[in-house]
Amino acid sequence: MAQTAQAHSAQQHSPQRHSPQRAGAGLAPFFKASSIAVVGASDDVTKIGGRPVQMLIKHGYAGAVYPINPKGGVIQGLPAYASVRDTPSAPELAILAVPAAATPAALRDCAARGTKAAIVLSAGFTEAGPAGTALQAELVAIAREHGMRVLGPNCLGAVNVADRLIGSFSIALEEHMPPFGHAGIVSQSGNVGSHTMQSVARRGMGVSRFIATGNEADVDVADGIAALADDPDTHIILCCMETCRDATKLISALRLARQRGKPVIVLKIGSTEKGQQAAASHTGALTGSDAVIDAVFRRHGVLRVRSVEALIDIGHAASMLMPNRLPRNDAATLVAASGGFGIMMADAMSEAGMTLPALAPLTQQRIHEAVPTASTGNPVDASAQMSSRPDILLKMLTALLEDPSDSSLVLFMSLSLYNTRLRGIYLEALAQVRASHPDRLLMIISQGPADAIEQINALGIPVFASIDAAATGLSGLARLGQLRAMGGADIAAGAGSTAATPLAEPADASIAAVDNSPPAPSAVDPIVFKNEFHAKQALGNAGIDVPREVIATDADAAVRAADAIGYPVVLKITSEDVAHKTEAGGVALNVADAQAVRTAHARILANVARHAPAARIDGVLVAPMLRGGTEMIAGVSQDPVFGPIVMVGMGGIFAEVLNDVAVQAAPVTEDEAMAMIRSLKMFPILDGARGQPKADVAAAARSVARLSEFAFRHRDDIADIDMNPILVRPQGQGVVVLDALMIPRAAPEPALAPAPVLQGQA
Amino acid sequence: MAQTAQAHSAQQHSPQRHSPQRAGAGLAPFFKASSIAVVGASDDVTKIGGRPVQMLIKHGYAGAVYPINPKGGVIQGLPAYASVRDTPSAPELAILAVPAAATPAALRDCAARGTKAAIVLSAGFTEAGPAGTALQAELVAIAREHGMRVLGPNCLGAVNVADRLIGSFSIALEEHMPPFGHAGIVSQSGNVGSHTMQSVARRGMGVSRFIATGNEADVDVADGIAALADDPDTHIILCCMETCRDATKLISALRLARQRGKPVIVLKIGSTEKGQQAAASHTGALTGSDAVIDAVFRRHGVLRVRSVEALIDIGHAASMLMPNRLPRNDAATLVAASGGFGIMMADAMSEAGMTLPALAPLTQQRIHEAVPTASTGNPVDASAQMSSRPDILLKMLTALLEDPSDSSLVLFMSLSLYNTRLRGIYLEALAQVRASHPDRLLMIISQGPADAIEQINALGIPVFASIDAAATGLSGLARLGQLRAMGGADIAAGAGSTAATPLAEPADASIAAVDNSPPAPSAVDPIVFKNEFHAKQALGNAGIDVPREVIATDADAAVRAADAIGYPVVLKITSEDVAHKTEAGGVALNVADAQAVRTAHARILANVARHAPAARIDGVLVAPMLRGGTEMIAGVSQDPVFGPIVMVGMGGIFAEVLNDVAVQAAPVTEDEAMAMIRSLKMFPILDGARGQPKADVAAAARSVARLSEFAFRHRDDIADIDMNPILVRPQGQGVVVLDALMIPRAAPEPALAPAPVLQGQA
Repeated sequence: MAQTAQAHSAQQHSPQRHSPQRAGAGLAPFFKASSIAVVGASDDVTKIGGRPVQMLIKHGYAGAVYPINPKGGVIQGLPAYASVRDTPSAPELAILAVPAAATPAALRDCAARGTKAAIVLSAGFTEAGPAGTALQAELVAIAREHGMRVLGPNCLGAVNVADRLIGSFSIALEEHMPPFGHAGIVSQSGNVGSHTMQSVARRGMGVSRFIATGNEADVDVADGIAALADDPDTHIILCCMETCRDATKLISALRLARQRGKPVIVLKIGSTEKGQQAAASHTGALTGSDAVIDAVFRRHGVLRVRSVEALIDIGHAASMLMPNRLPRNDAATLVAASGGFGIMMADAMSEAGMTLPALAPLTQQRIHEAVPTASTGNPVDASAQMSSRPDILLKMLTALLEDPSDSSLVLFMSLSLYNTRLRGIYLEALAQVRASHPDRLLMIISQGPADAIEQINALGIPVFASIDAAATGLSGLARLGQLRAMGGADIAAGAGSTAATPLAEPADASIAAVDNSPPAPSAVDPIVFKNEFHAKQALGNAGIDVPREVIATDADAAVRAADAIGYPVVLKITSEDVAHKTEAGGVALNVADAQAVRTAHARILANVARHAPAARIDGVLVAPMLRGGTEMIAGVSQDPVFGPIVMVGMGGIFAEVLNDVAVQAAPVTEDEAMAMIRSLKMFPILDGARGQPKADVAAAARSVARLSEFAFRHRDDIADIDMNPILVRPQGQGVVVLDALMIPRAAPEPALAPAPVLQGQA
Repeated sequence: MAQTAQAHSAQQHSPQRHSPQRAGAGLAPFFKASSIAVVGASDDVTKIGGRPVQMLIKHGYAGAVYPINPKGGVIQGLPAYASVRDTPSAPELAILAVPAAATPAALRDCAARGTKAAIVLSAGFTEAGPAGTALQAELVAIAREHGMRVLGPNCLGAVNVADRLIGSFSIALEEHMPPFGHAGIVSQSGNVGSHTMQSVARRGMGVSRFIATGNEADVDVADGIAALADDPDTHIILCCMETCRDATKLISALRLARQRGKPVIVLKIGSTEKGQQAAASHTGALTGSDAVIDAVFRRHGVLRVRSVEALIDIGHAASMLMPNRLPRNDAATLVAASGGFGIMMADAMSEAGMTLPALAPLTQQRIHEAVPTASTGNPVDASAQMSSRPDILLKMLTALLEDPSDSSLVLFMSLSLYNTRLRGIYLEALAQVRASHPDRLLMIISQGPADAIEQINALGIPVFASIDAAATGLSGLARLGQLRAMGGADIAAGAGSTAATPLAEPADASIAAVDNSPPAPSAVDPIVFKNEFHAKQALGNAGIDVPREVIATDADAAVRAADAIGYPVVLKITSEDVAHKTEAGGVALNVADAQAVRTAHARILANVARHAPAARIDGVLVAPMLRGGTEMIAGVSQDPVFGPIVMVGMGGIFAEVLNDVAVQAAPVTEDEAMAMIRSLKMFPILDGARGQPKADVAAAARSVARLSEFAFRHRDDIADIDMNPILVRPQGQGVVVLDALMIPRAAPEPALAPAPVLQGQA
């Protein structure tokens, strides 16, 4: 049931296509096929139809390889077939390396033969213009018709390292396969994925599987993540992603990876405006708003990195440290033989969000016993004396690893390993301390030489090439440790979180809402989009505090309303034809008594009649004049991929100029809304900065959560919602939405709303 | 004369010691001595008294080396002397490697022998506690008495690569000298400097001189910069600095380097709070405020970098590109064989402040002729086709280098150089394009292999290891290019600036003011610090717009003042005993007429009498009630090293929470003040964001400049000034300082100010 609702909901509000398959379903042949047809096979190994045949043979794939070429004969020593219809058995996987125009026919042949998976390596599809787009659509149609999965087109294919299954023409595999291991690589860009695989291998880190999705006609990055989550050889997933086309599938893939306990590290390509322009021209795909995907990653336990180096550094370190040596907190103890480098480490680690706890007195005493010249702050300035003998270094490292802070230990080595004598001392002490403290995290900053780094890595000790890389790396590892401590999505969120990055992990209720909760349309009240009054009324019905206010159609009604509400009041013209009420003279503030209400009412109507003679007037809104509090804004807009997105920020022009807002895919829990509010740069203003009273942020978070649920429930009807301003009063006194605007997804039909003469209703 | 005034002024307001020497004066023997005594010389080459002797011999120093040791005899094959008094000639330079306690006596011996320069390698001075501090003071006293220069103590000494003069025990020099070249290295931290020298050498980049200043008892980083500025072998200065102890000397050293056309790249260590804590415990020196030193660096043409990698990357690249190939603008053209890497490059370059111009149609056409599959945006997605043949790659690179944008060309190579065939293609095309376009900047992003990088570097093409390093590097190089285009400090500032970082380069007038302008004390009016009124009066006299306002001692005077000023007015209690006027009930806003003035006057006096019965009342300030504009703040505080620092920011709590202020050492020109205001995050609010009127920022800048001049003129009397708020009105309507506070450097003497009964004065 959940499955159906999920698919339904995504189809409803995703303007892009939504594949009917469960994330990762039907991908097995790409990695486990026992027979492979290479359509467009060639003897020329520099051609994309030649290289897969060459590499399958060279690297020792054990299954059957069927080169397909109209000429038949023998290709690279194997019997070739004129058509896939002629192969001895139906190939489980087809690799298509024929020109784009010939690809649909080739795919049809495969379908007819019963092949359920095809990799289309060829380019010339959506990235090449309208004709290519039509060809790509044809591939999708064929695949859907025959229940096939298609990887690509314009992709670098798939590799299973253990089985030497190479459905790729990556030049990175021409000479060597990467060593077998537990890192799975998913990349949309073939080149970036291939670079990652090669870099990982150059570090001596093993790879389980590789999948590059290219144009993503069918199989996308989410499928790849799900397939790797279900692969027992894969322990960690390294992902390079340019765009998300299907929010539901991505989220279910990320949930699966969390359930399986596999960290997902994502390099999301295209984070700035300029980068996003390039993304659009590169893939023809709309790159989703970066802040939205950031929020989705945060919610679903993804570690997002900002460079391919960080992806590889953290992936490599995590693969050494999992499952038990990931950081247990955000504390780091820093050691260098030099005060200057100590300061630089402290700077970089602090900027990356790590804390530097003071060492316990006993630890300091033990360090002084080992290294009398050491300065025992954090960073520890251990002086060159620390590396004068292995036993001295070992004593110092032992003292540090046994400090009660349980912090991660970072040792800066400068270029010491280039000195033969020092290298011996370091390696001896490191080997001993690893043996004596097998469960503790120690990492090194060093630039080489390469063979010394390899020796240290072989001890299970991560090495970073620079202070900045170590700081980025350790904070990423701390986030992985924190996610691990919190467990998968099925474990209650929020437990044991001490790291620097606030976690906006949804409670189960929210996840359930995302997946399962769209109520049947009949259960949803119809929305009236007429004006501010109706917007606030609808929000009020959704559990959000709005002022007690009335639309009055004449002066007497206005006075009655004001008497009931209590003075002073605000009067505002209510007309869907008057967008800028103040400019039209349609607002009166701080109206003090009944007589003033009459005067203001008359003046407003006169002003508006002069300013906009043709405006249809619904009446004059009478509302209490409210003051005392801080102004915030909240709203909802539609992301083309992730649907309704809820936003919250500080009110006023400052917030706008600084773009100080937080976003998350709706619905959000109150805890998530609170985390969003806390993430604002200006949060200190709400939190009692400069002796001001603390604002009722709990009430603000509640309103944001209610807004997000309302917007999610009505996602098929409502495009945008603005609540601006929201008056947030001092703690315990709640919030009130002073103005609101609601825009329907399509132009409202004239007959949709009842005539809004709502006199005296309050 | 300037010299004297300068020294005088620095001594007046620097709480730290100020050396009497011109920056760099008397440093020649550290690099050019023809005879060297090593006091504390040893046969044991692992000791700090053994290693200099060993290295001077090993690396071929041509001058005389005199080992000094009480035992005499022969040390490392050289005749040793019991005392420096016994050497055949007076050594030009002494290297002291005896225990701290023995150092003063050794230094006295050197002085007696006529030696004018000594390097104190030994530790055990200020960094070791009070006894060490006393020893260090003794060294300074001896040096001053005998006109000696002392480098250190607790330092890594000095090296002249060309002359093989090694006044150091750096382990980095144990096996190899760095190659001779044109990078001069100045570092306070020996370890960081040594790492830099070694890293530079490992890149194949030549070093001219090295100087590490350690505790800086006498010679400091500024001396080192000045000495390298005057060294013909040094073309670029790489500096690692923890603290500045002498602002005047640093600034004169930086001006000298600019006059000599030598870029100074500084890694300032200790930029965050945590880092600064470490700095304090490491060197015993107060690390100056980071924002202040940043402003001083910006003013004096220093390129500041944030990591030792950036220091080396940019230093290396600049040394290849100087003098004619530094970037001419902030434009970059990006090329990769992959869209994904192109997007990452675009992201990183945009974040680093580079612009990515569109290619000219002709350039695009030429690229398509060479590489039909290329996508010719910027970044160029050149596809793998670009590297299929050298002539194709050459054609494409040529087209890009001849694009009219005159941009810097950045070519991403992924791991291609590891492929033998591709390596050949790249190297051939690069060699050809360098020959055909010798004046154009092309840079590469590649991770190796090392020998291929060396080959590319040998062509004069910089190589960066990552996209982030390339972005940081190119933006730094663009800044160096911009500084070069602007010429030295003697050339008018501001010409040809197109780069991303705004330049706050002082006009000559400002530099003159810093160095020469302290007027004779008699020319400065005495300042009255009594209250807000006096503060504004003094600022008004300094040319800053303040309201027309009056202190009234009775109600009649208040009414007369209000009548003269025009209604509405503001009334404020004026008493040095009432700090928080509003809380004391001492303020009345928007007072509309004479009767209201009488009422408010009485209420204020009553409130204050109740709230602070003992307060001495100067009167009630009557001022116009001003509205309509944006509030800013400006002020002056004292930096212990750089003296009066002027600050400007947006008014209100938002600016404070966001720490959105700009600082610069006083005095600043109006142009500098404008650059400070433009650098505020909230500047768009002043610049007409969201349809608001543009504020009169020119008038605001004028006020800041006047404030800074006033504060500089009175730097011996005034500690702090606050102008808060400053009402900045719409363009052309000026500013007015609504409130001000001025705090004297010492407690004001009671008799200093005349009795402030200033009735009716306006």
